[in-house]
Amino acid sequence: MPLVRIDISKDASPELIRAVSDAIYDAMVEIANVPAHDRFQIVTRHAADELIYPAEGYLGLSYTREIVFIQVTWVAGRTTEVKKAFYKKVAEDISRHGRIRAEDVFISLVDSSREDWSFGGGVMQYAPATS
Amino acid sequence: MPLVRIDISKDASPELIRAVSDAIYDAMVEIANVPAHDRFQIVTRHAADELIYPAEGYLGLSYTREIVFIQVTWVAGRTTEVKKAFYKKVAEDISRHGRIRAEDVFISLVDSSREDWSFGGGVMQYAPATS
Amino acid sequence: MPLVRIDISKDASPELIRAVSDAIYDAMVEIANVPAHDRFQIVTRHAADELIYPAEGYLGLSYTREIVFIQVTWVAGRTTEVKKAFYKKVAEDISRHGRIRAEDVFISLVDSSREDWSFGGGVMQYAPATS
Repeated sequence: MPLVRIDISKDASPELIRAVSDAIYDAMVEIANVPAHDRFQIVTRHAADELIYPAEGYLGLSYTREIVFIQVTWVAGRTTEVKKAFYKKVAEDISRHGRIRAEDVFISLVDSSREDWSFGGGVMQYAPATS
Repeated sequence: MPLVRIDISKDASPELIRAVSDAIYDAMVEIANVPAHDRFQIVTRHAADELIYPAEGYLGLSYTREIVFIQVTWVAGRTTEVKKAFYKKVAEDISRHGRIRAEDVFISLVDSSREDWSFGGGVMQYAPATS
Repeated sequence: MPLVRIDISKDASPELIRAVSDAIYDAMVEIANVPAHDRFQIVTRHAADELIYPAEGYLGLSYTREIVFIQVTWVAGRTTEVKKAFYKKVAEDISRHGRIRAEDVFISLVDSSREDWSFGGGVMQYAPATS
């Protein structure tokens, strides 16, 4: 059910985009209890002036034009420890396989409820049992 | 107040995009208690490699490159039954008028509060009565 | 930590986009207790048929093709009064410096939790003290 938005430079290689996509999906399945094949992601490529980050850095981190913004909407309930492990694996895998700096991996999570999803066919697949 | 994001293939016809837009708006007004003319939607067209879905399908559903991702941010409070009816009508109307498979209609809902909206002019139009 | 999505016409000038970006950041720092340099924004430019608003207007407001959609995801906790002041400053500053109508500034806020953010490096920078 997670819906993932990946906003990235239009100069990113197909290999980098694939590495980002794979890293997020793999971390979800391995760490965040997301079922296999639950992989729904929207990539948007951006001109240089469309991805805005602080030139001065933030919290001791520095950023470059290779910054990747990842925003995940999913069902609430993951623990703080799971989220920590998720961030770590996503950034490490993108850095390793996409060959960009882990500091350029920005992640934002948004919670929703089980009733808030239709995977297709006009059906609420995760409907509560009592309804 | 709903703000709707529609992410769709750049090969989608203007007629399909219109059908998606109309289907969402009509279902909101008819089923989800959204006022007439409250129609705010952002369409983003994507290259084939930017809309990622499981080739194996998911939950018995299969997907094609015609997949349409719909993400709605609105004020919390709709019941499970209303959400079910909303999914059904959106997918059916898109399928009928846009001539794509209902399975290719993916919907995600995100809740917010009444204070979280300004429709323009720098004003909180839905401000609580007590403030 | 706010992640800001700015959806705007592809006819918007770089000056207007800069005015929008600055207005949001300035209002966050001055009014909404956001730290300096916490500036993360994603701009997406759109064709005319991709930004959909009611031709009839809504709530007495009217819109033009210059409409700017601003969606902010941030940590919950701002008061109604802070949100009101934020809307006002953003719309006024965009109108003044970007020379568009304040009515064309649409703002939507989405809440999240402190654990829902990684600013880079695979770390949960705002981790709760108890974990």
